[in-house]
Amino acid sequence: MIVTDPRAWADAEGYLRRAQAILAITHVSPDGDAIGSLLGFTHAMRSLGKLVTPTCQDPPHPRFDYLKGVRDIRQSGEGEFDLIVSLDSSDLARLGSIFIPAQHSRLPVVVFDHHITNLNFGVVNVVEPGASSTSEIIYALLQRMGVTITPDIANALLTGVITDTLAFRTSNTTPDTLAVAMALMRSGGNLQEVTRQALIMRSFDSLRLLGAGLMNAKLEGRLAYATIPRKLRKELDVKEERGDAGLVSTLITAYEVDVAAVFVELQNGDIEIGLRAQPGFDVSQVALELGGGGHPAAAGCTLPGPMRDAVNRVLPRLKQVIREA
Amino acid sequence: MIVTDPRAWADAEGYLRRAQAILAITHVSPDGDAIGSLLGFTHAMRSLGKLVTPTCQDPPHPRFDYLKGVRDIRQSGEGEFDLIVSLDSSDLARLGSIFIPAQHSRLPVVVFDHHITNLNFGVVNVVEPGASSTSEIIYALLQRMGVTITPDIANALLTGVITDTLAFRTSNTTPDTLAVAMALMRSGGNLQEVTRQALIMRSFDSLRLLGAGLMNAKLEGRLAYATIPRKLRKELDVKEERGDAGLVSTLITAYEVDVAAVFVELQNGDIEIGLRAQPGFDVSQVALELGGGGHPAAAGCTLPGPMRDAVNRVLPRLKQVIREA
Repeated sequence: MIVTDPRAWADAEGYLRRAQAILAITHVSPDGDAIGSLLGFTHAMRSLGKLVTPTCQDPPHPRFDYLKGVRDIRQSGEGEFDLIVSLDSSDLARLGSIFIPAQHSRLPVVVFDHHITNLNFGVVNVVEPGASSTSEIIYALLQRMGVTITPDIANALLTGVITDTLAFRTSNTTPDTLAVAMALMRSGGNLQEVTRQALIMRSFDSLRLLGAGLMNAKLEGRLAYATIPRKLRKELDVKEERGDAGLVSTLITAYEVDVAAVFVELQNGDIEIGLRAQPGFDVSQVALELGGGGHPAAAGCTLPGPMRDAVNRVLPRLKQVIREA
Repeated sequence: MIVTDPRAWADAEGYLRRAQAILAITHVSPDGDAIGSLLGFTHAMRSLGKLVTPTCQDPPHPRFDYLKGVRDIRQSGEGEFDLIVSLDSSDLARLGSIFIPAQHSRLPVVVFDHHITNLNFGVVNVVEPGASSTSEIIYALLQRMGVTITPDIANALLTGVITDTLAFRTSNTTPDTLAVAMALMRSGGNLQEVTRQALIMRSFDSLRLLGAGLMNAKLEGRLAYATIPRKLRKELDVKEERGDAGLVSTLITAYEVDVAAVFVELQNGDIEIGLRAQPGFDVSQVALELGGGGHPAAAGCTLPGPMRDAVNRVLPRLKQVIREA
């Protein structure tokens, strides 16, 4: 399902073959695909004798500590390079403080990404919206370049595939995705362990927060919603200051629910809102109207507080989505 | 990874080719692999012109209603047949009331199963403990017999693969499992929808019960446990009378937890106990000692009540498992 112009692939390969010192950058607030494609690429290019510096503005979450080399990812783009490779980032701004215009503007940038929103900001752009993940694209690159996939590379790329498909549960999972995962397992990747570490494990705190959220959840018609006020976090003595502990993704798994919403009160008083919908319903329009974004099945936005105002603004619109579907 | 004697495969194929009227039986309390392998086999053999009667002592759970033909599964083995095919059942007793000795004892039985505990009770036994599921074995059978995989067959077999691997999360998932899933997708199987319907969706009631269980859960050292007394179900007005709503599987996902236990008070006062362990810990010995069974990572047993006695009997043993690991 590779759709990029074959010349772009050939050009990308040419840049990589000629490069000696590569600055590899992935996006701020890195997720599993950001870290996985960055490390998979780094290990592979090093096996070809390249000097590679993997970087990300924000340090990876400790849940990815099982990945070889994750602690060597630098938070600075300083140094001498002859090529920049951007991984899983749709535009230059998403590379954050790593990209230093004064030093990097003269360098060619090769872009690997699967986001359809990619701005094609590189001198070469390998952008494959049909791929499950940037890791799936890096796998295709390594196949093309004849790189031997080691278990470290396999586990890095599996991490990207697993996290971006929620272990093959999302609609971006294609037969090709399964073929890539199969090949990575055959090269020594540990699918079960990657899934456990990257996707399943969480803190006991977050389980208690999930429990409290489920107990507080309300069902109005086919709309389920719950609030997570700051004082709930304080009562439960939860250490993590953000997030909904998977509450909105859990609410949408109920037969009785077509649309789910969770309202999280942030430190600054703003309300972060996560929306989910069953197939056939579209919550992305509501998120867009309110200054957010996303997909029909999963979207979000942030509104000013207090909680009650945000709830009163969003619920009527969601009920309308259900009525008009 | 097919290990059965090639002659057994050839014999099984011979019986199927010669048969005119097949009684296909799967085990009592059917899970996704029971239903999936039964329906996949039925559709496929009918496409070869065979008369097939799919049966199961207990009616399938409504969550499987998306499968073509699921409502035509009969709860009786009466009729004229020249061959019995047993699917996903490790012994004759697991076929329940469908197998009527007076009528069926003279008929040849062909067995397809992936349980290592299979008693090889057929005239031919295709038993593949390395397969993720009986559905994976039926896929190999259909490949062998040159059956065209329709979307209905694909969705049935995907159901077995997905439910027996928890969507590729368990240790029985091999590269071959992914290859089969990929092929089934290419034949029109809808992986996302099968996963959603067979594995993810649940009642809003069960979410509230899960929430209450998580709020009540206790962490003692690296042991997490929770109780679900009958009165909690009554307070929450939960309709389903059994099960732990996924509570023990959720507790074991916490970083802080090596072993998890959930105690469910049954209608008759007995206490059903579910046990889970992180890799490196073994709860099956405790379950065995108490008259239950299972695997190192997932086991269970039933003890007499009251709740407190069962809890006091099991917790010290689990703490010992953690200490001695």
